Amino acid sequence: MTAPLLALLDGTLADVTAPLVRADDLGVVRGDGVFDAALVRVGADGAPLVRDRQAHLDRLERSAEILHLPEPDRAGFERAIDALVAAWDFDAQPEALVRLVLTRGPESGGDPTAFALMAPLAASVVAERERGVAITLLGRGHDGDEVAAMPWLLPGAKSLSYSINMAAKRHAVRHGFDDVVFVAPSGRLLEGPTSTLVVDRGGALLTPSQDGILASITLEHLMRDAPGAGLEVAFAPLEPDDLRTADGAWLLSSGRLVAHVTSVDGEPLPRSPLDAEVRRILDV
Amino acid sequence: MTAPLLALLDGTLADVTAPLVRADDLGVVRGDGVFDAALVRVGADGAPLVRDRQAHLDRLERSAEILHLPEPDRAGFERAIDALVAAWDFDAQPEALVRLVLTRGPESGGDPTAFALMAPLAASVVAERERGVAITLLGRGHDGDEVAAMPWLLPGAKSLSYSINMAAKRHAVRHGFDDVVFVAPSGRLLEGPTSTLVVDRGGALLTPSQDGILASITLEHLMRDAPGAGLEVAFAPLEPDDLRTADGAWLLSSGRLVAHVTSVDGEPLPRSPLDAEVRRILDV
Repeated sequence: MTAPLLALLDGTLADVTAPLVRADDLGVVRGDGVFDAALVRVGADGAPLVRDRQAHLDRLERSAEILHLPEPDRAGFERAIDALVAAWDFDAQPEALVRLVLTRGPESGGDPTAFALMAPLAASVVAERERGVAITLLGRGHDGDEVAAMPWLLPGAKSLSYSINMAAKRHAVRHGFDDVVFVAPSGRLLEGPTSTLVVDRGGALLTPSQDGILASITLEHLMRDAPGAGLEVAFAPLEPDDLRTADGAWLLSSGRLVAHVTSVDGEPLPRSPLDAEVRRILDV
Repeated sequence: MTAPLLALLDGTLADVTAPLVRADDLGVVRGDGVFDAALVRVGADGAPLVRDRQAHLDRLERSAEILHLPEPDRAGFERAIDALVAAWDFDAQPEALVRLVLTRGPESGGDPTAFALMAPLAASVVAERERGVAITLLGRGHDGDEVAAMPWLLPGAKSLSYSINMAAKRHAVRHGFDDVVFVAPSGRLLEGPTSTLVVDRGGALLTPSQDGILASITLEHLMRDAPGAGLEVAFAPLEPDDLRTADGAWLLSSGRLVAHVTSVDGEPLPRSPLDAEVRRILDV
């Protein structure tokens, strides 16, 4: 993978290969911080566009609030994003992911650590928009609605403690799958490690209730614009069989945007008749 | 808090206030790495001793294996520990915690990041050995035995993704408690965010089954040496009432070693008649 560009909150670029973070930063030693990530690419008017920029900054603020971190320096993150977008070579890399990071800072005291990274969207990720993903269902160990009532479990926050999400994805790849959907002990479908599930059941678009799972900005976009196209997206309790017998399904995320589910634990899933419409709504 | 000392795996000390870790290190942006921590203090012979040094290095190796990280450079961590111990001023700070950290390295590729930190054990932590801790029971959202069968949830690994543990502890402190014991949805007691529970029930020392929770080195120590003192420690399924009606209880951890539980959600708990014996066995 190409090294990303790095920007500080004063709007200057820094060398990403030079160390930036202290060894005793709580973001390093405790995964104690938050992040968010948005897609950047050239829009219809030829100018680069940070997709849902304000929604991502809003969610970063919400995540910080859930972790009782100081309020993110929004103007600083805006400056960092602007610096990265201005420096990016969109001819060479037409799509990039900008990631905003805020940690609690050094354990022995000091200011929070904050920076923004911008990296090319991997070609393999872009390809999944067209070829879809073979998924496996993996237990998540807990129920979303239960966790939603336990703020100390940080439901709804995009924390830096993503090692389980990463491990689940590695587990899937080692077993020949592309991605994961987590299942609660109750049998309810939850979300992917870095994505949100939407299922087509007879023309109705359904997505797991977001209690205790991360609010998806791509899903918000779909929910907002689907009615204009005569479609509706509803929250619903979904179980594995609802997915296996669906007319199609997708994983939504901010970078990949959409990938249709081609199979569930090896059983093929059809491509939804609404697939083209969903992509149009999401402006893929 | 005093800034810690920092050592690299070549055995040299580095300035902890200077950045060491890249912004795109997976330890920072994903909490993707492992750590372990051991107590260091002057032993009976007057020489500094890293308590259970090899057991902590063993556990670091197991954690790395669970995360599919490269095997830790054990000789390098030994060098780093030696450098830190040699540089430490035990007259000024008689007790310290040495922390070993290994991350997956930069996201765009490169070697794992590894270092060791040594910080004074906070006076408030040392004081809890004598004054004990008021605890609150908080839901953990999942059952240990369920998680034990799901390797992608990283059961048994001391990963850098500790934000939930930190959040639970902050939640407790905000509500007037000192520490936390997690409870599974099944009602089983699990562990503390950074400690292991041991309960005295009528002279029997009981601790929650370690399925899906972190193997405690302090507990291992207690289990190994208790029989020599005529005591035994057994794994048992424990529920909140087993704790509330106990003859006493302790939280064990590598730095604090032992803190007796003074109350559970405000209900006082007696100090166990075995308290002095437990401390003697643990060489507190």
